Amino acid sequence: MTTDRETPATVSPEQSEREAELIRRVLSSFDGCGDERLKQLMQALVRHLHAFLREVRLTEAEWGAAIEFLTAAGHLTDDKRQEFVLLSDVLGASMQTITMNNEACGDATEATVFGPFFVENSPEIELGGDLSFGASGEPCWVEGTVTDTEGNPLADARIEVWEADADGLYDVQYDDDRTAARAHLYTDDEGGYRFWGVTPTPYPIPDDGPVGRMLTAVGRSPMRASHLHFLVAHEGHRTLVTHIFVRGDRYLGSDSVFGVKQSLVKDFSRQEPGSAAPDGRDLGRANWSKVRFDIVLAPADT
Amino acid sequence: MTTDRETPATVSPEQSEREAELIRRVLSSFDGCGDERLKQLMQALVRHLHAFLREVRLTEAEWGAAIEFLTAAGHLTDDKRQEFVLLSDVLGASMQTITMNNEACGDATEATVFGPFFVENSPEIELGGDLSFGASGEPCWVEGTVTDTEGNPLADARIEVWEADADGLYDVQYDDDRTAARAHLYTDDEGGYRFWGVTPTPYPIPDDGPVGRMLTAVGRSPMRASHLHFLVAHEGHRTLVTHIFVRGDRYLGSDSVFGVKQSLVKDFSRQEPGSAAPDGRDLGRANWSKVRFDIVLAPADT
Repeated sequence: MTTDRETPATVSPEQSEREAELIRRVLSSFDGCGDERLKQLMQALVRHLHAFLREVRLTEAEWGAAIEFLTAAGHLTDDKRQEFVLLSDVLGASMQTITMNNEACGDATEATVFGPFFVENSPEIELGGDLSFGASGEPCWVEGTVTDTEGNPLADARIEVWEADADGLYDVQYDDDRTAARAHLYTDDEGGYRFWGVTPTPYPIPDDGPVGRMLTAVGRSPMRASHLHFLVAHEGHRTLVTHIFVRGDRYLGSDSVFGVKQSLVKDFSRQEPGSAAPDGRDLGRANWSKVRFDIVLAPADT
Repeated sequence: MTTDRETPATVSPEQSEREAELIRRVLSSFDGCGDERLKQLMQALVRHLHAFLREVRLTEAEWGAAIEFLTAAGHLTDDKRQEFVLLSDVLGASMQTITMNNEACGDATEATVFGPFFVENSPEIELGGDLSFGASGEPCWVEGTVTDTEGNPLADARIEVWEADADGLYDVQYDDDRTAARAHLYTDDEGGYRFWGVTPTPYPIPDDGPVGRMLTAVGRSPMRASHLHFLVAHEGHRTLVTHIFVRGDRYLGSDSVFGVKQSLVKDFSRQEPGSAAPDGRDLGRANWSKVRFDIVLAPADT
């Protein structure tokens, strides 16, 4: 924020002082807060909120529209739908929080948004197993290694994987309590892992609420770039929450929640129907793909 | 915002660039918005929101607490309770919006927060009439004039008045559909007005929700300084929404919604029981008070 933005030239010095004086009063109302971190958060929130209001010279009608937006978001939110998370996502606030809390550390794999579709207690599969459990989609062979930032293999790292099916839906979005397209597995002694999943496809975030209407109003797409979720944990290392994306996907440049990082875009190479699968599996005449994702975990407490 | 706040010294240049690059991507997602004002609002919101996140280095747990706060506010909000307005009020955002949209104009009377308790179609009273309609409280004689900024009296100005009773409640907060402590009247040919109301007393904003819990956590009081609401309208002039406050009130310096302006603090002079009322009314041995409030309306479109 620069001063000229906060106080447009059309605002008189007297008016500007009234506005600044109000901010000082609001800030000082938090002076008695005994929790230093909470005080810092609230005072910073007040400064930035008022700087925004003054920069745009918010009208009373716009203020009313903002109250209506938040009210509608609140009424739509329940155990299965979180419109405030969606709002944070489409404003890049979720991604910024994740970026700040997973600082760059050597060549450690970058983190991205967690999303609302992770489920505890997923089924365990063997190395080379299939996590699709009947989910629709083209088979996809995923393999790679988990190492530390010095290149040492990490054995017994726990890898959780989850993804949408070819219809763009996660298992939890169906009403039939199915478990599909999710599992966990562990790396071998050389840090290696491999499994069958389905080739990711693009899908829209839920767009039938106020966030969707906002995206429409500003001309933005609700589509997420195709991706496969990973959560990788190993003792002594920072737990990694990330995705891999599909190189060439049409939504890479316009992912609705800003989750794409170039280092996470991978080659999902399309294989000829009938070509030999890495593990000798008989895929018949199905299209299938394969991808390699080598994961590097940062040390804990970085 | 200064740059050193956005990027603490502990953040590496590489990390800082990742964060800045994300902001550029989010901002550019609004480039295609055909509504220039909406585009300005959304891009400014993104800049200030991310500046806040980066300044405080919001943790993932704090982000989660913010989502929970908004969710709880949304679930409490209904036709009778507006927790998002309350949130805006206690952060000074409502008052800042009003301040910006009612710019200082000569000696025109200052505006303040509208509040949630105005009701359309209040009863009309004659000049000198009583708007209490049985509301508890000490009688209060209110008189004054309505003029323009050049001192010309404004005849037939419509004055709406509403206030809480001695128990700190507005009529609409009772379940019995009563109409009390609210009315409208019109100025006479000399711009004069006068009526009986009740002497204002302090009361808390609704504090049994997330906003109240926040106030408790930061050590702030939910109390509003004693006040009497006015809405004054006259053709060709800016409609005025304001309060008058009681000089000497203990909450003038800590009004929970920052509505107090020094120019709106008035002398409510306590009268001896049994002393003569201005209109000869027999008040028996009741305590009563009187106050003068001369109102100046700015020209329309200022």
